[in-house]
This record gives sequence, structure tokens and C-alpha cells, in this order.
Amino acid sequence: MRKILIIGSGKSSAYLLKYLLDKSVSENLFITIGDLNIENAKKLIGNHKNAEVIILDVFDENSRIEAINNSDIVVSMLPARYHLQVAKDCIKFKKHMVTASYVSPELQALNEDAKSNGLILMNEIGVDPGIDHMSAMQVLDRIRDNGGEIILFESFTGGLVAPESDNNLWNYKFTWNPRNVVVAGQGGAAKFLQEGTYKYIPYNRLFRRTEFLDFDNYGRFEVYANRDSLKYQNVYGLDNVKTLYRGTIRRVGFSRAWNIFVTLGMTDDSYTIDDSENMSYRDFVNSFLPYSPSDSVELKLRYQLKIDQDDIVWDKLIELDIFNAKKRVGLKAATPAQILEKILKDSWTLEQNDKDMIVMYHKFGYEKNGKKYQIDANMVVVGADQTYTAMAKTVGLPVAIATLAILNGKIKTPGVQIPISKEVYQPILKELETFGIAFKEKEVPYLGYNPLNN
Amino acid sequence: MRKILIIGSGKSSAYLLKYLLDKSVSENLFITIGDLNIENAKKLIGNHKNAEVIILDVFDENSRIEAINNSDIVVSMLPARYHLQVAKDCIKFKKHMVTASYVSPELQALNEDAKSNGLILMNEIGVDPGIDHMSAMQVLDRIRDNGGEIILFESFTGGLVAPESDNNLWNYKFTWNPRNVVVAGQGGAAKFLQEGTYKYIPYNRLFRRTEFLDFDNYGRFEVYANRDSLKYQNVYGLDNVKTLYRGTIRRVGFSRAWNIFVTLGMTDDSYTIDDSENMSYRDFVNSFLPYSPSDSVELKLRYQLKIDQDDIVWDKLIELDIFNAKKRVGLKAATPAQILEKILKDSWTLEQNDKDMIVMYHKFGYEKNGKKYQIDANMVVVGADQTYTAMAKTVGLPVAIATLAILNGKIKTPGVQIPISKEVYQPILKELETFGIAFKEKEVPYLGYNPLNN
Repeated sequence: MRKILIIGSGKSSAYLLKYLLDKSVSENLFITIGDLNIENAKKLIGNHKNAEVIILDVFDENSRIEAINNSDIVVSMLPARYHLQVAKDCIKFKKHMVTASYVSPELQALNEDAKSNGLILMNEIGVDPGIDHMSAMQVLDRIRDNGGEIILFESFTGGLVAPESDNNLWNYKFTWNPRNVVVAGQGGAAKFLQEGTYKYIPYNRLFRRTEFLDFDNYGRFEVYANRDSLKYQNVYGLDNVKTLYRGTIRRVGFSRAWNIFVTLGMTDDSYTIDDSENMSYRDFVNSFLPYSPSDSVELKLRYQLKIDQDDIVWDKLIELDIFNAKKRVGLKAATPAQILEKILKDSWTLEQNDKDMIVMYHKFGYEKNGKKYQIDANMVVVGADQTYTAMAKTVGLPVAIATLAILNGKIKTPGVQIPISKEVYQPILKELETFGIAFKEKEVPYLGYNPLNN
Repeated sequence: MRKILIIGSGKSSAYLLKYLLDKSVSENLFITIGDLNIENAKKLIGNHKNAEVIILDVFDENSRIEAINNSDIVVSMLPARYHLQVAKDCIKFKKHMVTASYVSPELQALNEDAKSNGLILMNEIGVDPGIDHMSAMQVLDRIRDNGGEIILFESFTGGLVAPESDNNLWNYKFTWNPRNVVVAGQGGAAKFLQEGTYKYIPYNRLFRRTEFLDFDNYGRFEVYANRDSLKYQNVYGLDNVKTLYRGTIRRVGFSRAWNIFVTLGMTDDSYTIDDSENMSYRDFVNSFLPYSPSDSVELKLRYQLKIDQDDIVWDKLIELDIFNAKKRVGLKAATPAQILEKILKDSWTLEQNDKDMIVMYHKFGYEKNGKKYQIDANMVVVGADQTYTAMAKTVGLPVAIATLAILNGKIKTPGVQIPISKEVYQPILKELETFGIAFKEKEVPYLGYNPLNN
């Protein structure tokens, strides 16, 4: 029996476990899931004989080391900050390791140790990061192998609510960590490359500089820029690219309405609001508007932000019930961002039968024999229910497939890595297709950012 | 002879030295000015026999200690971060000390040492902070001594160009540190109290939430909120006040135009612009606008910010020559804020014969016997030339007067302090009046923030 240790059994475990359990007999696998809270894992494995659940506290060195030493490969589904210690143990006891998280500089520093021990420390192999790397590199490599030179690369991902569950004016519900949505885009200007020029967008303009994307069968979406579009420029081999742009996908109109919160200051996470516990939602809104003994909070907001009465953004605000004078915030010493998150959760929490959706879109512009071409590739994955979500599927399956491929020696190059080599992305993308995680490609005219080409 | 050591001889030294030299014979004073660069000090003292200039490096412990030990009182006009070491030496060698800078927590921690040695460490005794404290406390104490209860306190200060030198569309020139002007308002939401409610203004709205102020004979000004209006609430004894608002004064229209830079992201000081050295002013502006192969930078900016062609803010931008494609930035690895500062200096540097101006405005609302009253007090000081500026006068004279008053035992309460006690502000404000630094007071109807009272 090959022994797989999975540490952490949160929201993205469902497909990860299902894949490995389904293969456990034919592949001779035994899976141990370790977590402090074992309820979710127990439910997911049922009474499968090739799996067990153990209570595991990663801060307890003895039990952590025992579990790791007793396995052949370790999958860490813990929050990213806990990976380093697990990685060090893996090197010490000569185990491979797989995570879906970003590589920290400290983790990267283990690269030589991993190599000299012949160990694979595979990271960023979920959806974003993960499927984005693999699907992008597959097309980039193919274009370059055929003699093309990449001049444009754009990549967009979004976690959204599925069309059949999309029943609010924002066309949005929280399908992952709400906090990340509230503070998205903060911490510095967004930077990207457009036709050879560096462009910078400050936070206050980020949600007003969106662009549209059309998905066959799914209609129109919009994107806003990620903070650092240049992060993988070198890793992807795009040092000479003219346009490099990465962003986040939302349904059309989300960003223009969201910008109201940005403009008012409601997404700020850097200070606490006075007496936040006892204020009403209405008080919260009013704290960002000038005092008036008579004018309503509604009219003050409309006036400050110049919102016409027939503008749909107004109905979006009303739908969130932010002017309610009876609903209490009820959070002690809360930041504006924390209060806004609470208000949004009232409206944007998935209901029992709601499904989520992951969308991804790449644009590849290239030049070959003096002519310019473009390939667009996109992926849509809709969740089955609230356990087998699109998020759990697109995070869990690549992790699971990579884990088995490492065990079986199909992925064999050692080191701290992300899935950008053919050895890794080819077998994984191919198998993902059998689960309905597939990209549709089409050739389109190369337009770049030149409207005169239209 | 009483020996006064002045460390640092920068822009604000002219009146400080003139006052002390003028009194030096009658008051039996000998003034030593120590600085690394002694040209300015030499010019200011001429061949006065009661003064000398020495080369002093404050980082050279021996010469610093020798100079301090050889004096009766030390005035530190150094940048604020250097005061602490001087203060420690002053306590060690039992010398009083005067500065015009904010009290750091580290300096405040010397309070007990100062008291037990009978030493006065007087700080924040320039203009802002300084004259604002003294003039506010004088009226606040008077109202309270007469049985009034303060319900509103607002205080505004501005360093501007004098009306006779005011010849650009912004009605503004740099009369002090340009960098502080460019980054003003950053670092967190502005917080203040309006009619008992805490209000918060994010940076992107700060320059759009201005209010007007009218000065007799000088016309209308505008103010934007300082970051922390509540800083002196407790120190001024205003714990129960309903409205507390502090701000910065500009000429009307400055803020609305300035907000264009804020919105575009040009005031950001947190990252560097790629290849800033070789870009033109026009490139700089363009880096904050979407790429276009044909549309002009001008039209893109107008469109993004919805600026009508007959809006005066447009002419303000043109006046700064920010669309010039030939003027090079010429700064290596510069932040947007540093580049903007450079562009503004081209237009906003004082010319040979330009004069500066300091304006201050306080509003005091109070309740007495069930009725509400308000007193407005304002001050205008116009500079004489570029040596004897309004800034040098309003910073240097209070420092000089306080220094002599401490030497003469008129100010005698020991400790680390700011000028908020009657013992300090009464004699200093009285003497400042003889130099034309005086407040005009008038009683006005109490309006608060209630337009229905109008």
C-alpha cells in the first residue's frame, strides 16, 4: 500500500478525496486525513476501507512528524502559512509534498535541499494558481514550439455563482473567502503592460477601468486588473512580451457598483470604526457622509456620488439593505472592511441549493512570419452542489492527480516547483478533461489594444 | 552674559535670530549658532558682536556636548528626528530646551527627568503647531472661565502665497516643504467629529469634501480635513465637544483640481515608476491612462475624469505643462509623488520677489445659560521677502520669545510641554501682537452644521 497523508480537510477536500478513494483499490493507496476538526473528512470518506481520519494538530511536533514519517507523500491543504514547517519535515523524512498555495520565498529556499534529496515539492497546483499556469503554458509552449513569438498574454479568472443560482442584482455571491473579495485590489497600484508601455491604476480607479470578455454560451463578463500582472512574466518566458495583463472576472456591472464602496471608504481595513458594535447599517453608511440634521442618508449618498435615481447601481445598494436603521453591526472594534463583509454576507451567502462556477479566459497574441495571430481559450466549470463545488473540483482534482502522478513516477523532476513544465501539465490537463475541466480554444483576429484594427 | 545655543540655521531662522540679536545688548545675551552649513547664519548675524557661528555636527558627540554644556539654554531647529539626543544631553547638563516640533513619544518619556531637574523642554511652539495651540487655548480658557461650555471647535491653518504674488491659476506656490504638500492626506482616512457623530473621509474623497472660510479683506478660502482632528481633543480639554474639526487652508478651487492628481494616482509614494528617468512629463501622465494608438493623452484624461472643455481645472493642468512631451522627468527610480513634485516645482517655486502668507482660522462654539454662541478668530501674516517670510516669522518669533521668557524666569513650570498653559501663551501672544501677529475676533451666530439655522 502506498500511503498518502492529507493534512487539512476544508472546503476544497471533496474532489481531492473522491479521486484518491476511487483509485485507492486499483492503485493500492491508503489515505490518512489529519485535521483538528475531523467531521468533514469523516463524512467524505464514509466507511471506505482504504482511508482513515486522525486528529492532527500541526503545532504538535511529535504527532506531526509521526504522521509525515508514516506516509509516502504529503498533501498539505492547510492555510499557506503552515506549509513551511511541513515542507521541512518532508525533506527531513524524504517525502514528496503537494500544495495548492503560492510558493513563499522561505519555501523556495528549500529548492536545493529538495533536489539533492530527489524530492518533489509541488505547489500552486489548484485552480488559480494552478490550472491557469498549466493551461497557459500548454498554449504558450505550443505557439513557441511552432516558431511563433508571443507578443500578448492576458489571463483572467473568476469564482462566481452559477447562472442557475444567479438571482441577485450584483450577479454575485461569496463562493470562497469573503474577506479577500472585500479587500481585493488594495495595497498598491495595479501594474501591467499594454503595447510595450507600463500602466498603473490606483485603487480608486481600479473598478472603473474594467474591460469586457465574452464567453460562448455564458454571455458577457467584465474584468478588473490584478495588482501585479507581471508576477509570472519571467517564469512563463514572456520577457519580451508587449502586453501582459492579468485580472479578475465578474459579471458586467459588478465593478461599477462596487466602486461606490471603494469611493465611500467602506473597504478600508486599516482602522477601526468608533463604537462599531452598536451602530446600525445606516449609521455605518452615514459615517462616510457629511452631517446633516435633515437630509436623508440616501440623498446624501446619491448627491456625493452623483447617482441618478434610475441608475441600477442604486437598486444594487437597496438590495443589500445597507440603509436599514434597525440591523445592528454587532462587531466590536471592527474595520470598515469587516463591517461591509458582514453586511454583504446577509445577501451574498450561498443558499442550500446554490451552485458555484469557476471561469477562466486566456488571450495569446503572437507573431509568426511577420503576421499577427491570436488564440483565445476559456474554461467554465459549474459546481454540482455545496459539497462538490466548482472550486473544490478545480482545486482538488489537479492536486489529487499530481499526487498520484508523483507516486507513480510520472512526474519525476525534483525540486520546489509550480506546474509549468510539460512533464507536469500535459498528463494533468489531459486527465482533467475527463472530468469536464477543459478549455475551448478559438482563433480570433489579433486586435491588441488598437481599436482601429476593428 | 546668558548664553543661547541655536542648533540648525535653516529657512525659519531669520526672525528667530533677529529677535534675539535685537535684545542681546539690553538682555545681556550671547547667541551661538551651530550648523554644518554656516553660510545662512553668517549672513543673518552679519558682524554682530553678541553672536557667533560655529560648525557643529550633531552626530559628533564631543562637539555637541561641548556646545550644549557651554550654554544656558538650547534651541533646536533641527529636523524633529534629531531632537531626542539633544534633549537627553540637555537633561544631563541641566539646560532648558526649546523646539518648534511635535513631541515624539520618546521625547515625552523624558518628562519626569525634566521635572525632577527643574528643566523646561518646550515644544510645538512655532506656528502649526504653536500659534494654533496658544491662540486656541486663550479663547477656550476665556470661554470656560466665564462659564461657557465648548460644543464646537474648528481650527484651520494654511501656508500660501501672498495676494500680491499670487499669479497662477492654482493660487498656490510652495512656501514650505513641497513633499508634504504632495503626500498630504495619505496614510489613512481623515477622522473628525460633527455634531456628536464620528465621520471618516477616505483619501480619494478628501479633496472633494472641502468647506469654505471667509477672511475679512482676504476673501474666500477652502479647507480640507486633516487626518486626525481628534489629536488635541484631550489636551485642549474638549472631551465633551460635539464638533471637532481641524483642516488645511487653500484658495478656493485648489482641492478640486488637486483631486485630479489623487484620482489618477500621481500622488502615490509607495512604488517607483519604470524607467522614470527617461520619461517625459507626457509619458508620466500617460502611464495612468489606458493605452491607445491614436487618442491623445489630453482626451484620454478628460474622458477618464469627465472634465468638460470649459472647466477651469483643465486650464490649471495646462498651466503646469504636464502634457509636455519634451520635458524629461530626469529622476531615477522615482515614485509618482516624486515626479509630480518635480513637475509642480517648475510652476510653483517662489520667484525672487514673491512673498508668502500664513493664514489661520478658529471657530469656537459654546453654550451658556441654555443659549448657543460662536466666536470666530483669524490671523493673516504676510511675508516681507524671501528671507523674512511669514513662515519664518510665525515659527521663529514664538520660539525666540519663549526662549527669552524661560531665561528670564517668566515661564517657569518644568517638564516636557507644549504651549497650552496661561503662563506660556499669555505673555507670548501679547508680545507677538507687537510684531503684527494678531487674531481678529468676532462674534457670529452659532450655526453648527445645521443649514436650517441659516
